[in-house]
Amino acid sequence: VKGNKITVDTDELLALIEADDASLSAYFSSIPHAADLVEFFDLADIKYWPRFLLLIGDEEKRAELILHLDRARWPELLEHLDELNIATLLKHLESDDAADLLAALVPEKQLAVLRALPLEDRNQLAQLLKYPEDSAGGIMQVERAQVRFGAVVADAITKVRELVEEDVEVLAVWVVDDAGRLMGTVALSDLLLNKSTSAISTLVNTEIISVKPLVDQEEVARIFKKYDLLALPVVDDDNVLLGRIVIDDVIDVLSEEAEEDTLQLAGTSPEELFHETDALGTARIRFPWLVAGLICSFVSMLVLVLFQPLIERAVALFTFIPVISNMSGGVATQSATVIIHGFSTGKADLSDLPRILFKEMRVGMLMGLAFGLLAGGASTLILGSAYYHVGVVVFVSMCVALTAATLLGVFAPAILKRLGADPAVASGPFVTSLMDITGILLYMITATLFLRFFGTI
Amino acid sequence: VKGNKITVDTDELLALIEADDASLSAYFSSIPHAADLVEFFDLADIKYWPRFLLLIGDEEKRAELILHLDRARWPELLEHLDELNIATLLKHLESDDAADLLAALVPEKQLAVLRALPLEDRNQLAQLLKYPEDSAGGIMQVERAQVRFGAVVADAITKVRELVEEDVEVLAVWVVDDAGRLMGTVALSDLLLNKSTSAISTLVNTEIISVKPLVDQEEVARIFKKYDLLALPVVDDDNVLLGRIVIDDVIDVLSEEAEEDTLQLAGTSPEELFHETDALGTARIRFPWLVAGLICSFVSMLVLVLFQPLIERAVALFTFIPVISNMSGGVATQSATVIIHGFSTGKADLSDLPRILFKEMRVGMLMGLAFGLLAGGASTLILGSAYYHVGVVVFVSMCVALTAATLLGVFAPAILKRLGADPAVASGPFVTSLMDITGILLYMITATLFLRFFGTI
Repeated sequence: VKGNKITVDTDELLALIEADDASLSAYFSSIPHAADLVEFFDLADIKYWPRFLLLIGDEEKRAELILHLDRARWPELLEHLDELNIATLLKHLESDDAADLLAALVPEKQLAVLRALPLEDRNQLAQLLKYPEDSAGGIMQVERAQVRFGAVVADAITKVRELVEEDVEVLAVWVVDDAGRLMGTVALSDLLLNKSTSAISTLVNTEIISVKPLVDQEEVARIFKKYDLLALPVVDDDNVLLGRIVIDDVIDVLSEEAEEDTLQLAGTSPEELFHETDALGTARIRFPWLVAGLICSFVSMLVLVLFQPLIERAVALFTFIPVISNMSGGVATQSATVIIHGFSTGKADLSDLPRILFKEMRVGMLMGLAFGLLAGGASTLILGSAYYHVGVVVFVSMCVALTAATLLGVFAPAILKRLGADPAVASGPFVTSLMDITGILLYMITATLFLRFFGTI
Repeated sequence: VKGNKITVDTDELLALIEADDASLSAYFSSIPHAADLVEFFDLADIKYWPRFLLLIGDEEKRAELILHLDRARWPELLEHLDELNIATLLKHLESDDAADLLAALVPEKQLAVLRALPLEDRNQLAQLLKYPEDSAGGIMQVERAQVRFGAVVADAITKVRELVEEDVEVLAVWVVDDAGRLMGTVALSDLLLNKSTSAISTLVNTEIISVKPLVDQEEVARIFKKYDLLALPVVDDDNVLLGRIVIDDVIDVLSEEAEEDTLQLAGTSPEELFHETDALGTARIRFPWLVAGLICSFVSMLVLVLFQPLIERAVALFTFIPVISNMSGGVATQSATVIIHGFSTGKADLSDLPRILFKEMRVGMLMGLAFGLLAGGASTLILGSAYYHVGVVVFVSMCVALTAATLLGVFAPAILKRLGADPAVASGPFVTSLMDITGILLYMITATLFLRFFGTI
């Protein structure tokens, strides 16, 4: 009964891959939740998938399983299923998922599958395919329980029955006027607790939130979270109800966006996950991010070449370069991440910039003092007291560089936001590389000034 | 009607803060969704909050608003509300939220508020307070529609009515045996579509997933996602139903965990957000992460001190240090992030290690070749052809360092996972710093070998 406790013996599964049709079919029937078949499919080579899929007798379960398989592999899998098999799958999918599946087909096959569908479904899906995948329209379902304002509870129950018979999850009944414009919603429990002759107009809740189909899916997730919704209606410019977004799709959106953010922060992308064993394909995706890093680090190198005469006079100075660049990069990343997080959650805005800047500057000065003393002291210990002046240069440049780092950490995302770009780009490699250069430059300038004023270094 | 389109004039809101009780009360009544009052509260100083709260006539809305206010500020806010006011709030909250609110009180006040509650609520909440905040028990609600296996549809409808009257959201009816052990669930639509005399036993779906109360909330979120659930029952070791987790709480869990991950990756923590203007408090949170960075960078420095004689013979060598450390850190972070992502989404496992390692090594060698050629060429250009041997050293060390970087990027998270620690710790500053050291070391060793075999550098 506890799905999360199912223990799977990998060896048994591997043996099953080679089993005959009857054993496979029996195995598939024995697992109640399609999601629990994913591990078996992942173990088998994708060339077996089409045969396996057709051995799942329960068409409903077959369709559900497809949704849990890696979407990156849909094109390859669908290539080996014929139009009629795909059309059967589509019948058991919610319309948003059906549209996603269709989108994974090559154009000719897409047309062939659409032709194999009943006219109504065909038009619905063709309509859904027009919305961008990551928009409200792209994640909405068109099937829904919908009644007119003048209806009674019994009418609504009839609608619910129709949908439940088609295996559509019903969370609420939508109420529209004669032109299809959204007026409100009635909870299932209200239908349950009122007489079948009660007027819908007396039960309808008109204080509802809705979105337009082109709203970004991240914004949709924010609205769900803010208003604790289970479903969100999508309406056109005339407020005509087009479909609904259900909360379990929002869970997928949130995971997807978190995945994308994490991978992009490290200089790669979710696309890479499609190249399971292809080293060249993977390298190609990661390459551009590293080229950006290479260019930045060459600027650091140029700065050092510029100061080469200084280093020749005091070689010990150069040993400190990793410390100054590591520390100032770290401090800048911390500030940038907090600001970006504030922007993305709506907790901070450009109007808060003076307050944030004032605070971060003080944080930077505190860090500069603390780490300047620590690093200056440690440098003197490592290099020996003959090099105490390096310790002084380290202390001064650390104070300046860490304060500068917090300023860069605040300004980089703020400028991007001001320009209308995604402030998150400023985190990770970008700020680190920029601060590398700045840190080394400040350190070298401090050392030069020291040399000029004290005549020694 | 479109909550996401409400445009708020900040100046008007600021003027409202100073308004009299009657105007404030009228304003609060005019906003249908409590979530839309958050911006106004955030603009006002927290010292006004208790008065504002009590001016919201609708107790339901008042309770809902509290949930949307920053939880870090609950202790300060609750300090200024008396026991009876807090007890009234609790009555309108779901039990999981009520327990969270109670947990924000100092122990004496917590006792006083509990005493002001009816006996049943008091026992329920005292029970919930025992579970860790981030466990299934910590996010479950105890209120639910529950019937015996022998009941009929009419009994279930009575239960639903009781809960709806208490403003509890009902998504399904739970079916238990005489000892309270979970047997299955009946959908609301099944109640709606069947006769009131139908036996529950004929409608119950027994293929359900459940969790124990101490399961981590991240695991709970994964189960919701995997099985597309709207609600998940929590049971004890004897399978007795304790409560249910509802999907909108899972949305909060996902956002919370994503926030935590992002901030920790940058070497800070969500705690920092409680220190809005306190630079010292903020610095204290960020400090330990930077100390770790400082220690690592000092190891890099020691490596350089070790090779100081080499640098004195060929000062130009040192200019390349930022490039090698930046590039190898970047490559290692990319590999580590992809592995960590695979582990955390369950797409990869320790058993996949040989395959992953083989692939990443090839990626590393490709990167090493490409960037070795680029960087070696560029170095020769920057330093002039007299330094072509630096270019050769750069090429060789880049090839070795970038291959080593992918290996480190794979092994660091894998070793942490093997030890039972969180592999995500390996991403960000940790891998970068470790690779800094390794990169510099490999570069210096290559240069030394070059010097030994060719007699020049």
